[in-house]
Amino acid sequence: MTLTAELVACGAVRFGSFTLTSGRQSPYYVDVKQATSRPRVLRLIAKEMAAKAKGYDVVAGVELGAVPILVAVGLEADLPMAIVRKGERTHGTGKRIEGSDVANKRVFLVEDVTTTGKSVLEGLRVLREAGANVDKVCSVVDRAEGATDALAAQQCRLEALVSAKELLAMSAKGATH
Amino acid sequence: MTLTAELVACGAVRFGSFTLTSGRQSPYYVDVKQATSRPRVLRLIAKEMAAKAKGYDVVAGVELGAVPILVAVGLEADLPMAIVRKGERTHGTGKRIEGSDVANKRVFLVEDVTTTGKSVLEGLRVLREAGANVDKVCSVVDRAEGATDALAAQQCRLEALVSAKELLAMSAKGATH
Repeated sequence: MTLTAELVACGAVRFGSFTLTSGRQSPYYVDVKQATSRPRVLRLIAKEMAAKAKGYDVVAGVELGAVPILVAVGLEADLPMAIVRKGERTHGTGKRIEGSDVANKRVFLVEDVTTTGKSVLEGLRVLREAGANVDKVCSVVDRAEGATDALAAQQCRLEALVSAKELLAMSAKGATH
Repeated sequence: MTLTAELVACGAVRFGSFTLTSGRQSPYYVDVKQATSRPRVLRLIAKEMAAKAKGYDVVAGVELGAVPILVAVGLEADLPMAIVRKGERTHGTGKRIEGSDVANKRVFLVEDVTTTGKSVLEGLRVLREAGANVDKVCSVVDRAEGATDALAAQQCRLEALVSAKELLAMSAKGATH
């Protein structure tokens, strides 16, 4: 099965009335957490992303949705891993980045789903503040609702393994069979 | 290298004066986050844990420290993965467990470091409330400060890949060479 088919089979697309993190209303919701919790699908995601991670030093992502993905990519591509924590850290070591050092490293930033790109833009900012070189973000699914332009404005390219358009087309097709 | 040697080489043991999550003071601190961010060490942890996960249906752990471990074990042992979120969920889907369904499943619960076992006991409670069968916890390092007894009181066995005693002995040995 292709990744798109695997995602649809995992129930990654749900139809209804949803309020997104951005506050926007949407007639569909994309949740790849079911997909990334299955070893076969996660391996498929990792293989496709690892092919795009050549030449990078570190793989990173924002907690929590991107963590299974960055770990699988790190294992597949043999790259050290870094996790960007959400929000301000007030306890523990206070660090926003756990794991590998990122200063002066070429960092491959991964995400589960990109919509406006808000979460990944925050990750990009934290990584660059720590001295990382980040020029590409790779998400499993891009909903095409602004993330590409928002990242381009930060000199960062967005690549997605699957577009929401492809996912919706295959979901609709599946529903008629 | 053995896992113990890899952990020491990663700086998993630090000496000084530390306040643990439990409030206790300790002359040393065990942090395996550096170790679990390195693909080679994470693969070693995953192989050793996968050997203990035979017969289980799902691998689970509490965010965030256990997530790289449970993902690596899931990929190595071909098991679906579940992440227990910390604290009460007030946003998103409100779920305490992300990923695989755990009801009536034999769940292999993993942890990075066990001390009193507080975090993993909370994970155990959440998983059992969701209908999971959990009889074993596997941690990378056990500090031997109560977790074994606390888990035994909940009919759960603790197995650790490495004891703090072994880690400290090897750290001391390394320091004299």
